[in-house]
Formats: sequence, structure tokens, C-alpha cells
Amino acid sequence: MPNGTGTNGAEALLRTVAAAGVEVCFANPGTTELPLVTGLDRVPEIRAVLGLFEGVCTGAADGYARMTGTPALTLLHLGPGLANGLANLHNARRAGSPVVNLVGEHASGHRPHDPALASDIGLLADWASGWVRTSASSAALAVDGAEAIAAAATGRVATLIVPAECQWGPGEPASPVPVPRPAPVPEEPVAAAATALSRGGTGSMLLLGGPALAEAGLRAAARIAAATGARLMTETFPARAEWGRGLPAPPRLPYFPEQARAALDGVGELVVAGARAPVAFFGYPGEPSSTVPQGAAVSILAGAAQDGAQDVVGALERLADRLRAHGVAVPSLPEPTPPSGALTPETLAAAVAARLPDGAVVVDEGATTTLGYLAQAAAAPRHTVLGHVGGAIGQGIPVAVGAAIAAPERPVVALQADGSGLYTVQALWTQARENLDITTVVCANHGYRILQVELARAGQGQLGPAAAALTDLSDPRIDWVSLAGGLGVPARQVGTAEELTAGLEWALAESGPHLLQATL
Amino acid sequence: MPNGTGTNGAEALLRTVAAAGVEVCFANPGTTELPLVTGLDRVPEIRAVLGLFEGVCTGAADGYARMTGTPALTLLHLGPGLANGLANLHNARRAGSPVVNLVGEHASGHRPHDPALASDIGLLADWASGWVRTSASSAALAVDGAEAIAAAATGRVATLIVPAECQWGPGEPASPVPVPRPAPVPEEPVAAAATALSRGGTGSMLLLGGPALAEAGLRAAARIAAATGARLMTETFPARAEWGRGLPAPPRLPYFPEQARAALDGVGELVVAGARAPVAFFGYPGEPSSTVPQGAAVSILAGAAQDGAQDVVGALERLADRLRAHGVAVPSLPEPTPPSGALTPETLAAAVAARLPDGAVVVDEGATTTLGYLAQAAAAPRHTVLGHVGGAIGQGIPVAVGAAIAAPERPVVALQADGSGLYTVQALWTQARENLDITTVVCANHGYRILQVELARAGQGQLGPAAAALTDLSDPRIDWVSLAGGLGVPARQVGTAEELTAGLEWALAESGPHLLQATL
Repeated sequence: MPNGTGTNGAEALLRTVAAAGVEVCFANPGTTELPLVTGLDRVPEIRAVLGLFEGVCTGAADGYARMTGTPALTLLHLGPGLANGLANLHNARRAGSPVVNLVGEHASGHRPHDPALASDIGLLADWASGWVRTSASSAALAVDGAEAIAAAATGRVATLIVPAECQWGPGEPASPVPVPRPAPVPEEPVAAAATALSRGGTGSMLLLGGPALAEAGLRAAARIAAATGARLMTETFPARAEWGRGLPAPPRLPYFPEQARAALDGVGELVVAGARAPVAFFGYPGEPSSTVPQGAAVSILAGAAQDGAQDVVGALERLADRLRAHGVAVPSLPEPTPPSGALTPETLAAAVAARLPDGAVVVDEGATTTLGYLAQAAAAPRHTVLGHVGGAIGQGIPVAVGAAIAAPERPVVALQADGSGLYTVQALWTQARENLDITTVVCANHGYRILQVELARAGQGQLGPAAAALTDLSDPRIDWVSLAGGLGVPARQVGTAEELTAGLEWALAESGPHLLQATL
Repeated sequence: MPNGTGTNGAEALLRTVAAAGVEVCFANPGTTELPLVTGLDRVPEIRAVLGLFEGVCTGAADGYARMTGTPALTLLHLGPGLANGLANLHNARRAGSPVVNLVGEHASGHRPHDPALASDIGLLADWASGWVRTSASSAALAVDGAEAIAAAATGRVATLIVPAECQWGPGEPASPVPVPRPAPVPEEPVAAAATALSRGGTGSMLLLGGPALAEAGLRAAARIAAATGARLMTETFPARAEWGRGLPAPPRLPYFPEQARAALDGVGELVVAGARAPVAFFGYPGEPSSTVPQGAAVSILAGAAQDGAQDVVGALERLADRLRAHGVAVPSLPEPTPPSGALTPETLAAAVAARLPDGAVVVDEGATTTLGYLAQAAAAPRHTVLGHVGGAIGQGIPVAVGAAIAAPERPVVALQADGSGLYTVQALWTQARENLDITTVVCANHGYRILQVELARAGQGQLGPAAAALTDLSDPRIDWVSLAGGLGVPARQVGTAEELTAGLEWALAESGPHLLQATL
């Protein structure tokens, strides 16, 4: 890349997105991205954060986006680099997170020679993205970047494929593209929801997901419930929920379908806000996909974030007003106290709830261990929960990185299943490199517990050797204290509820990253 | 999945591929693959090996295929699972390795509900595979499996997407599909190569890649060189090369393009066997993509493995016969002796060459550190080298897993760059779980050295803060001894050539996996 006297395309792109508000680039670049790397040196408004695997970068961008509502960049190397980041882009897409990927491509004259790292990057971009473009020239690159930011800002993953000559050729910064505000929900679904909940009374339910789980959404929902008798429920894995003392805490829709059916039993009118109508995570022989009772009427007040940005909170407030619902006081709960005895999913959640600092961010990829966390944390200090959206495992440790960079004044506590955590364990190094205030609690049950449960549900009570081998992580046992130490994060093992409480106190008293292996 | 009395599709598929010779399944399954998991319990001919990340599974399948020439299965969970395995499938595709991926898909009736983990798996499959199919029924699944095996056997990645109901519905095993032998190279390119090399004499070169680097191919090439005066050269990153004492050891085509141009300088006639005509890994402003001298004539005797299975060795032998070339004795080299002093790329390779057991398999993803390995290992005991094909980093530790499972009687030595090794470090756990005889030498230079070199080549002698941050792994330093220990692999740090030699002796004296962090 020549040291031209003018601005090259890479620098023009970066100046453009910086002017549009981008402050961070989660990067793992290669040779085809070097003009963007040296461009970052000339655009110090954008902080470059290295991830040692691309899934770290994309997961961190998702976490950042969930906290700020604005996109971070990722910078990825060709098709394989994007491929490595796809699983967490799937989660970002499902969460409705704005993310902008810059993916380097071979120079257009070089690409037809099919060098070793050539591939059809567009196929991968299409898989995960709501907006995809390959830049045509260095002069167009900055405009492409401005449009990518605007596309992402509506809650989408935007992927800009950047051939090398578009980076090193001459370019000029472009003006930001205006971002539309989330669309108001039309009157008709608000009216229909009011009718449904009034008609259904205590046989009705308001299911909240996505942006409905902001504080104002929860308070509006509580008013609606008080006025109509409707039950409230939270989607199973919220992208972001405000939680804790003083806030309404609707029960979570259970993960396993028979439990979800039991939770929805008796519901005649289901109104959904910021989510989709419930379906099972997986299909099973002879079972319906929907977990909604047969014959129940379903009204969508506002869909899920991935289906388009809407003003869901505004719709809930209008619905409450239409129902002439008054504000309601949230019953005050006793402060949680630290548990004692064996470490179980219950005592683990109770210990976290009892020691959580006010204003924390809790990243929950605890899988089977933390399915009960939300219920137990209702009495914890106010915090924000970033949940396991999308179902692709390996998001927790990276999302914690992004959340900590987005909100450096808030301590982050990551509840992390062990099998899932190993997918992107490299993110611990970025926590150390950036000295991020993150406490990771590894829920170490040494198995793919959810598969063991699924096998039992399917009548495979006694696992054969292959099923046992493919769901067991205990031979050898993974030593997370060593793993974390190797990546620069101080760590301890805890084996009882008391030890976990003490470990949380240790980790939270010091700034910087810490890890607790909670052996269940 | 019901415990039916008959055979289900999953079991029928597995019985079919077992009958076709499949012995191993590298798996990381989820709920949509559980009938295949329980099927593995009923088909014990197939060994189930768990990888803690899908890139481990696909890389291991590649390594297994390079050693045996036959496919292993992978078993992957939906789109995100396949996504995580793509980078190493890219490498397998470039290596011409037969690999068969079984990717579970939601039940066809469940898929339209777009549950959280739904995605367009076909896009991802198309990116990496030469053969893709989605099964239509449980009755068809076994036939699909037989055809996938046959498709892979010609040196391709074959991906079979298996909806859940095709696994749990009734099925019957199918007959294996015959696999065509590699096509003989036609007479015309053999004649053309003979003419070119005879005409070019000492100004000609025979570039060997892919299957040409088998022992018989190397010996035929040496005859050809002796008869014509042609120089021999090895492609930069061979999928598999036989190497060491008693074998011809052509120099390797350099990685960096100016060095490749220098190595090819003066060549008027270039004949390529089992590779493509050389191009630079990346394009640079104002530089041609090809590294072949302008005006040189290029003849393709046989293309790269990825371009179709051909009998490259047979073509070289026919070429040698046509040239009436006699057998040549390979000059005997002095046995390598252990080096002393500082650890450098040179002393690292020398120590490995001096302590390599006879019949070892060397997996080389040493990146910049081991670019000189092949030259130094020419005098080492006979071994097999599995190189860094495809350029997607993170293949070394998984490929070593697959090689060790394919050839349990041969010790495996993996030369592993540190930055690349972190991509799929989880593979160390599988080495421990399966007690594989692998010695991993981590070439720990604590940087993305290749990018630092590229930045320097581009005139960025003094790195700015972003460029420095994005290419540096030294803050904090990664402690590979702790990492390996956490994953169950005994490890030591070595800081001198003598310590590396002693470390190799320690690691190679005991069976099972070991790791040496060689701090450069």
C-alpha cells in the first residue's frame, strides 16, 4: 500500500464511520486488510481492539451494540476470517444488534488467479447479514461505509466486502447517511392487543421480548397486567433486559417445550411485544412446533427486533394508556443473602444475586445452570442482563468484552457454561489486554448437560458409549484456572456456595478481569 | 427420537458409510443430531471422537484424510456448527482432502417456524464443498450417505444436510457407490512436458505439488531432473510430502513474492505437476499476480488436487520413461546434530530434525518460523510432512489430531505458530482425551509476525499504535504451558536450542500428548 500524499480509501472509510459515531473496531486483520490497519493509526477516534479469533470480534461487537444501541466495527480477514465470526453474527442478527463487518478481499485483479485464500465471501456474508455490499472502487468506499452504518443502525448486521485496491486507492470521506428512528407501531395492533387482553382477563398473557424489556417497557407492562389481569412473561433468552430490585420481574418462558407448554397452559389470549409467538427450540417426533395452547388467539403487538426496528416501548405505553392503566408499585423484595452449602444451579444464582454490585451488567450464557437465574435475581440490585440470543454457543465471553468496553463504569459479571465457553475462550486474553472489569463465573458441570437432558427426554436414560463420549467433558477435566491464567486472567476454583461468595467478593473488589471456576 | 423396533435413517446411514470404510466420526453434535449420536452407539465400527469446537472436527478430518486417503465423517450442529468448521474445510478443499460432513437440520416441519438456530445451511455448505445435498427422506438417507462418500473419495469436501426427521424415520442401509480411480493424465500433457523440459534444459523447472510429493513422485522427478537438467521445486505449502534422508528434497517455492520471483528467475520453461502455476498469496499495488518470469512458458502436466483427482505420480513416471531417464541415487547427507545457543527459526528446525523419530508425521503450521523447515529436514529421518494448505489459520493442532488417529503407530510432531494455534487450541483437549502421541512445538514469537513483515515490506517500518496493537500478542504474554495443562496436556517452556532438544527427548520418550512452548 503506497504512502500516497492524499487520503486513501481505507482512511476515508474510517474517517467517515468515525464521524458517524463509530468508536471501536474489534479486529483480527490479515494482509488484505493492512491499509485499514494503518488507516486506524491515522484515525485515532476509533479504538482498535484485537481478538485472537474472529468469533471474539463479532461477539464483542454484539455485546457493544446491545449496550450502546450503536454499531462497533469488526475487521476480518477474507472468507475464512468471516467464517470464523459467523456463529456470533448469527446471534447478533437474532438479537437485532447493529454490527458492521469490514471484510478484506483480494485485490480485484488478483482474485481471478484463485490464490489459496480466495473464496466466495458473498455467500458467507449473505448467511448472516441483512445488508451486504462489495465495494467497487476506492472513491466509493467511504459512501459504502456510511450506508453500511445506516443499514446496521436499524438493528441489522451489515457486511462490507472491501477489495484491497479499494483500500489503497485514493478516497475522500463521505457524509453520514441519516438513520431513521424506529417506526411507531400502528394503531391497529395496539387496539387489537387492548381488546384481546380485556377479553382474556386472567386467561390472557403479555409476552415481552427484545426492546420491551427496557425499564419503561417493563413498567408499562406491569400497568397493563394490573388493569387487565393478564399474566406477564419474559421471552426465554432476552437480548437485553433491565432487571433487579424495584422492577417488575415477569417469569421467563421455559426452555424445554413441555415446560413451556405448562407455563402457557390456560392462556386463551396471547399478546406478544418485541418477540415472536413461542415455538420450541427444536422439533420432536409427533410434537407441534408451537408451544402456545391449541385454540389460543395470538396477537402480535410488535415483532422481534430481527424483524425490523419498531418503537415497542412506545406501543406498550400507548396500550397501557388506552386501557387507562395506572402506575403500579413493584412489591419490595427482601435483599438476597448469600447461600451456603453445595454449589448447585440454585445456590450459584443466589450467590451472584447476593453479591452483584449495583449497576452491573450480567452476561448470561450459563445454559442449563442459569435457566433459573432471572427468577432468583429479581431481588438483586438493579442490573442489565444480556442473554443467550440465537442459540449459537460461544457468545458469552466475547459479549462480556464488548459490554465492558461499551460501559467501562459498570462491572460485568459473565455466567458462562463450560462447554460453550470453550468455543471462544480466547476472548479472555482480550479481557486481560484491555484490563476490562469482568468477572467470569464458569458453570463447570463438565458435560454438555443440555444434550444429556435431551437424551434422557428421548428415553435414552442409559447412554451408550458414543453418546456418553460425545456429551462428557470430564475426561480429562478442564482446568479453567490454568486456562485463564495462561491467557492472563487471574482465576480461582470454588466448590461451595460460600467459596463462590468469597470468590465474587475477591473478583469484584479489584478492577480488571477475574475468573471463577464454579465446580458444580 | 423413538426407540423404534426397526432401523432408523440415522443408523442406516451410519451402517452404510461404515460398510464403505468409514472408521471415525469427529463430532460436536447438538439436539438436531441426537439420532445420529445414538446411532453411533449401535454402529461401533465407527469411532466417535469429540472436538470441543467444530474447527477441531473439520481440521481433524482433513488430517485423517491426508494420512489415509479416505474420508472421516464430521458431525456438526446446524448452521452455526458448520460455520465454525468452515475455515478448516476451506483448507481441506484446497488440499483435495476427502471429508464428509453430516450437518443436522431442524425437522422439515419445524424449520418454517424459524426457530432461533434456523439459518440457510446450504449457503455455508456451498462455500466449502464440492458436493452438497439435503436429504429428502429417511428412506433416502443411506443412499445419500453412500453417494457423499463416493463424491468425497475423489478429493472433495462433501456436505450432507440431514433434517431431523430423516434421522428418526425408518431407513435401510444402502450399497456402497463405486469410487472411480484417479484419472490417468492424457498423453498430450506428458509429451508437452517432455518437449518443454528437453528444450529448456537447465533453464527449465519442474514444480511439484499435491500427490507429486509422494515418494514415487519425488523419485520420478529426480530422474527427470537428471535427464534434462531441469531444476526441481516444491510448492510452498504441500498438503502431504514424503521427506527426509534418502529422498530427493527439492527446495520450497518461497512464500513472499519477491523471494518467489528470485527463486524462479531464469526459468524459461516451467512444468507443473500436482499444483497450479505460482501466484502470489496476495496482490500488491503495481505488482503482477504471477511470480513466473515474464515470457516463461508454463505447461501443466497435472493440476492441483483441488482441481480433480489425477494420477500425478503415474504421469511423472511416464514422463521419466519417455525421457529415458535412469534412476538416480540421492546423495547421503550427514545426520543432523542438535544445535546449541539461542532459539531461532533455524535452531528450532535443526533441533526438530535432529530428534525426529524415524517414521514421524510432522504437521507444519509454523508460519514464518518454519519457512526454512523443509530445507533443514532433508537430512532428518524419513517422515511425512502435512503442510499449511489453504492459508486459513488454525489447522495445525486439529490436523495433528486426525493424523494421530489415522496412524497411531507413528509419532506426530506439530510445529505450530502461536497466533494460529490459538484459533483452535481446544484441539489439545482431544489429544488428551484420546491419548494421542503428539508433540506440539509452539513457535512462540508472541506476534502476528507475518503481518509485521508485511507492514515492513509496505514501508511501515515504524508501526503506529493501532498497527502495533493488532499484530502484537505479548501484552500479556500467553502462557502455553498453563493453557496446555488446563486442557490436559503436559507441557514445558523451552528458551534455548539445548532446552528444546531436551524437551523433545522428554516428550517423545512418553506416549500421549505433550507440548513445548519454544520461546523465540
